Amino acid sequence: MSSSFGSRFRVTLFGESHGPAIGAVIEGVTPGLHLEEGYIRAYCARRLARGAYSTARREPDLPHIVSGAVDGVACGTPLTVVIENTSTRSGDYGPQSQIARPGHADYTGHLRYGGFNDVRGGGHFSGRLTAPLVYAGAVASLMLRQRGIAIGAHAAEIAGVTDTPFDPVSVGPREFDALHSRDFPVLDPAVGEGMQAAIAAARADCDSVGGVVECAVTGLPAGVGDPFFDTLESRLAYLLFAIPAVKGVEFGAGFSAARMRGSESNDPFVSEGGKIRTSRNAAGGIQGGISNGMPLLFRAAFKPTPSIAKPQQTVNFVTGEALTAEIRGRHDPCIVPRAAVCVEAAAAIALADLLG
Amino acid sequence: MSSSFGSRFRVTLFGESHGPAIGAVIEGVTPGLHLEEGYIRAYCARRLARGAYSTARREPDLPHIVSGAVDGVACGTPLTVVIENTSTRSGDYGPQSQIARPGHADYTGHLRYGGFNDVRGGGHFSGRLTAPLVYAGAVASLMLRQRGIAIGAHAAEIAGVTDTPFDPVSVGPREFDALHSRDFPVLDPAVGEGMQAAIAAARADCDSVGGVVECAVTGLPAGVGDPFFDTLESRLAYLLFAIPAVKGVEFGAGFSAARMRGSESNDPFVSEGGKIRTSRNAAGGIQGGISNGMPLLFRAAFKPTPSIAKPQQTVNFVTGEALTAEIRGRHDPCIVPRAAVCVEAAAAIALADLLG
Amino acid sequence: MSSSFGSRFRVTLFGESHGPAIGAVIEGVTPGLHLEEGYIRAYCARRLARGAYSTARREPDLPHIVSGAVDGVACGTPLTVVIENTSTRSGDYGPQSQIARPGHADYTGHLRYGGFNDVRGGGHFSGRLTAPLVYAGAVASLMLRQRGIAIGAHAAEIAGVTDTPFDPVSVGPREFDALHSRDFPVLDPAVGEGMQAAIAAARADCDSVGGVVECAVTGLPAGVGDPFFDTLESRLAYLLFAIPAVKGVEFGAGFSAARMRGSESNDPFVSEGGKIRTSRNAAGGIQGGISNGMPLLFRAAFKPTPSIAKPQQTVNFVTGEALTAEIRGRHDPCIVPRAAVCVEAAAAIALADLLG
Amino acid sequence: MSSSFGSRFRVTLFGESHGPAIGAVIEGVTPGLHLEEGYIRAYCARRLARGAYSTARREPDLPHIVSGAVDGVACGTPLTVVIENTSTRSGDYGPQSQIARPGHADYTGHLRYGGFNDVRGGGHFSGRLTAPLVYAGAVASLMLRQRGIAIGAHAAEIAGVTDTPFDPVSVGPREFDALHSRDFPVLDPAVGEGMQAAIAAARADCDSVGGVVECAVTGLPAGVGDPFFDTLESRLAYLLFAIPAVKGVEFGAGFSAARMRGSESNDPFVSEGGKIRTSRNAAGGIQGGISNGMPLLFRAAFKPTPSIAKPQQTVNFVTGEALTAEIRGRHDPCIVPRAAVCVEAAAAIALADLLG
Repeated sequence: MSSSFGSRFRVTLFGESHGPAIGAVIEGVTPGLHLEEGYIRAYCARRLARGAYSTARREPDLPHIVSGAVDGVACGTPLTVVIENTSTRSGDYGPQSQIARPGHADYTGHLRYGGFNDVRGGGHFSGRLTAPLVYAGAVASLMLRQRGIAIGAHAAEIAGVTDTPFDPVSVGPREFDALHSRDFPVLDPAVGEGMQAAIAAARADCDSVGGVVECAVTGLPAGVGDPFFDTLESRLAYLLFAIPAVKGVEFGAGFSAARMRGSESNDPFVSEGGKIRTSRNAAGGIQGGISNGMPLLFRAAFKPTPSIAKPQQTVNFVTGEALTAEIRGRHDPCIVPRAAVCVEAAAAIALADLLG
Repeated sequence: MSSSFGSRFRVTLFGESHGPAIGAVIEGVTPGLHLEEGYIRAYCARRLARGAYSTARREPDLPHIVSGAVDGVACGTPLTVVIENTSTRSGDYGPQSQIARPGHADYTGHLRYGGFNDVRGGGHFSGRLTAPLVYAGAVASLMLRQRGIAIGAHAAEIAGVTDTPFDPVSVGPREFDALHSRDFPVLDPAVGEGMQAAIAAARADCDSVGGVVECAVTGLPAGVGDPFFDTLESRLAYLLFAIPAVKGVEFGAGFSAARMRGSESNDPFVSEGGKIRTSRNAAGGIQGGISNGMPLLFRAAFKPTPSIAKPQQTVNFVTGEALTAEIRGRHDPCIVPRAAVCVEAAAAIALADLLG
Repeated sequence: MSSSFGSRFRVTLFGESHGPAIGAVIEGVTPGLHLEEGYIRAYCARRLARGAYSTARREPDLPHIVSGAVDGVACGTPLTVVIENTSTRSGDYGPQSQIARPGHADYTGHLRYGGFNDVRGGGHFSGRLTAPLVYAGAVASLMLRQRGIAIGAHAAEIAGVTDTPFDPVSVGPREFDALHSRDFPVLDPAVGEGMQAAIAAARADCDSVGGVVECAVTGLPAGVGDPFFDTLESRLAYLLFAIPAVKGVEFGAGFSAARMRGSESNDPFVSEGGKIRTSRNAAGGIQGGISNGMPLLFRAAFKPTPSIAKPQQTVNFVTGEALTAEIRGRHDPCIVPRAAVCVEAAAAIALADLLG
Repeated sequence: MSSSFGSRFRVTLFGESHGPAIGAVIEGVTPGLHLEEGYIRAYCARRLARGAYSTARREPDLPHIVSGAVDGVACGTPLTVVIENTSTRSGDYGPQSQIARPGHADYTGHLRYGGFNDVRGGGHFSGRLTAPLVYAGAVASLMLRQRGIAIGAHAAEIAGVTDTPFDPVSVGPREFDALHSRDFPVLDPAVGEGMQAAIAAARADCDSVGGVVECAVTGLPAGVGDPFFDTLESRLAYLLFAIPAVKGVEFGAGFSAARMRGSESNDPFVSEGGKIRTSRNAAGGIQGGISNGMPLLFRAAFKPTPSIAKPQQTVNFVTGEALTAEIRGRHDPCIVPRAAVCVEAAAAIALADLLG
């Protein structure tokens, strides 16, 4: 089934971009959890474009809670949040609803739902659906915080410009706090300038760019994960690949490990003050599908935003007629900075579910 | 839960490397499916090392069917296969069972199972568990073949030596048949020579190498996949990351897409003879988490074999004592050629489950 | 997990009696299904008390659709309905929130949710939660109707007064239509008079009564059900026991079969016009957990309404203090007539999920 | 899916009556659990007919463990047991495989599995499949025993002869121990004599009889159960209805509650020594789908054994030809005494899964 994830912390997403509302039902929230409004608001705000790279359509995305909490405290019953769609005009895409915009889900969505899907604004495929996902991630993060688990992500690469990577052994909440306080989530602000220049250049060309988000999790106890199938990598990758535009996921050294020798990719074990750890972290904190107590490290590759103003060759998928797609309106030429919090949210949800 | 995957084609794996047996229960096999012994035998044989790069321990791994079939025809009830462990001597690892071999799951497995896991030969973490996985993949492949779906994989890269990639638009069963007939699964046999030389060099250094498996699926109908969460990428990645040693998964252009512009990564649509297709395939056959009718393309990165003879720094994870791991016995310095069929099997199982 | 049911037709319920809203997310609705408003309204209306036996609190319970449909046609994406709680005053129970009302879930809910559950009006345990359940049942019924499957239920017994049972062999849509058109769902209206008199007598005594709902399903194809575990009985019983106040479920002859001999409970097979059927139906249309093409027949026992005005011995579950529970306000002394549609809804949901 | 139950304690059953073997994969066994052979053997032995009412076919049903345990101690990985079928002759039913034996699953199984199911000896529908179920129940019971939870069941009624019921308030392990030590599981041995006489009379008439098993669980903590859907009743009923021949399930007063008034069926709360309990137990220990700390009480109705020697009217379900079924061989005319342990096993499995 499509729209629910999890068994112990379960998130069910609903909504279409231009329908009445989008939202989520979140099951398994710890009874008594304080849903700190300031924390959640700041968390969700990171999903919104800031500064130059925003889209024309801006919505506050303020969810309201319709069940599962009394006075901001979780009841333990399903927590439901609804985000009203204030902008429901559909003129942008309406008359062009049979055009297969390259890189979009127009054609595949049409097939999957027998032509009955709501195509306005991308419908259920809209990036707007990440708003309730991020809300659920905020709630999961509050639950994880109680266990001493922290999560942070940054734009590790945009248009080929690369940020300083996390130190795989020593990364921690200090870096996360710094990232969360910045408008542009990079460790090295100078790099952020270069990325923004590259984004602006793409926009000037009526084009878009992609990038890579790197994420780290600290404080996760060793011994978490359920092989054979339900490995920590499987769980996390499953959710990461649900984020629109993600086309690759790697843990620790990832694809680079494929070019290492075993003596390089095997992390030596050491004992420090009675605690077992590894002196390197090519494994990204996971061995045999189970956490080993080191920082969890993974990266998600995002393809460029498919909505570009540049004319593109395509077809009317009902008639087969060849035509040129012209996607109007202002679109964010790079979602990667905004996607960092989506990656954090996915990780938080996956781990909250795993830890039960 | 750990050892079962799927809801409509469900595989439950069991067994420890040096216990009485390993095996699988496979639910959802089409009643009446002919379990072609020759096909399955050849499929499973591809998992075994051939030629120079074999391990010392060779087992025929011939499964016998204990339920769910009569005279080689599936009943529709759970199909259970058992593979007896003929080599159950445990001297190799026995006295060293508290040594955290770098790159292995010894330490994490100890934590996960409270010290009660069967450590002999890697126990439940042994690569031997891929034998019943591959058997299940063979059965799934037979089911998919009835629908006109074909799957092939090759060693796209080993120790930095790269094979010709699949043509993302025209790849098909002809390439798969060629690969399946070769001892070393590469499209370009000359490249295979180079890979084998690199493997031999690593072995000579008491070391090991990793690589990348590329896999393609053809014949999958357009319109398959269940966003938001249950995207085609999510499903496949979930299973691929369960294969031991996989540390990265990408679809289509994958991590390369992160460096493209939208005008490059958006695949133009064309109509040919009344059929909609794309003229490129950076998407790897998936848009919005749903198949678009083009070949499905993905790659899995394998870290180098962790078992190496080279001395490595480590600890006794019970006492914390520092020591040097010396892994004796002959080990396969590169599992990538044998892993190609594991990747095919994972894809077949995921798709059989999705198609129901 | 608690609040979701199903894998192919999945219903997630949310809400508390006196919170902002209650509702449901319904996944797996057939794309293109016309959500006939008249049908759904009439279906849901049967859940409301009519005539003399109503409670003081009446709400229209008109759900509004917030996702998954455009112009009354299902998109195939999650269908979300929200029912605002117009009556959110909580004075009834507020100051008494630590009193374990006999027969209610006050004490067990307190334990289950660590004291954080919303106790106002029964919170998540309120019978109001059956409103979105019945809505989901109406949608499932529309899907089943397309397959020629019909469902009907009647108050087979109330306070010991028994209605004519369904004819187990010939029952069909004609009886269902008659029942659905009546204010009081009985086959024999004279019996309904007797039941209402018994209910009135209980009310006069500040007490309440229970009863039995009998349900039949016709048009279900033979061959549906998935033993070993996922039998048709298991599926249906699972959902029926989720309806508040249900304490017993039986199929076909049920508990009576325990007193039969095999020669009585075995239904003889006959062939009529090339179609196999049974000449009796003690099996309730199910053999070996699989439908046999005969009408599906089952009964659910409802305990009396726990809310009674009669003084009852109880305790404050926090302090342990003994006291007398006095439940004020007007309460429905018999929910059985209104519960018939809940039973139909549960059956419809279970079958829609099973048929996919 | 059909053959797996559970998410935290998961049982997958496999096998056909006359195939090579039957068995189970049991996931979620506590690592380190001692699989006490004497306990398990005695538990499983209660499933076998003893004395006069045995069938002709007797097998020791000794399972052997093929994975998940070392030296009788659970590893935490999937515990797999295999029971070889020593009697695989198929002559009994072979030539009659198209005869729909009344009360059997021959016809429905044929439809469900497209005619490919193994019909020999009932195949996957055979009562033999309860052998691995009971084994899994024994393991679950060992896990529950560590938490102080005890389970007992007796033949509460056979052919209309009724045993003394459990005292719903004070029932406990003492009664369970007595029952488990008896050949015939009744509280009142004199009643057992009457039941055996009724069974013998049915046998003399070439007929069979059914009955009711009553089961009690003590030591279950209050606060267990997950409404809305995953109520304690739903969970238990789901598994109970998977036991072949069960046609009714009721909790506490069950169907009798339907004839009570609320003042009778509401159990008054009292506080004793700081502990909250109820002075009666019509609820069967469950309120709002959640345990209340009182003994859990439920009853399962078993229809008579369908295999009877008496000639019965039926058809060949392929040709439609009318004929007379003559079921040869000796069959147990009443499975109820042997079914008591099946009911206990189902309860143990459901609770082990719920408690995780």
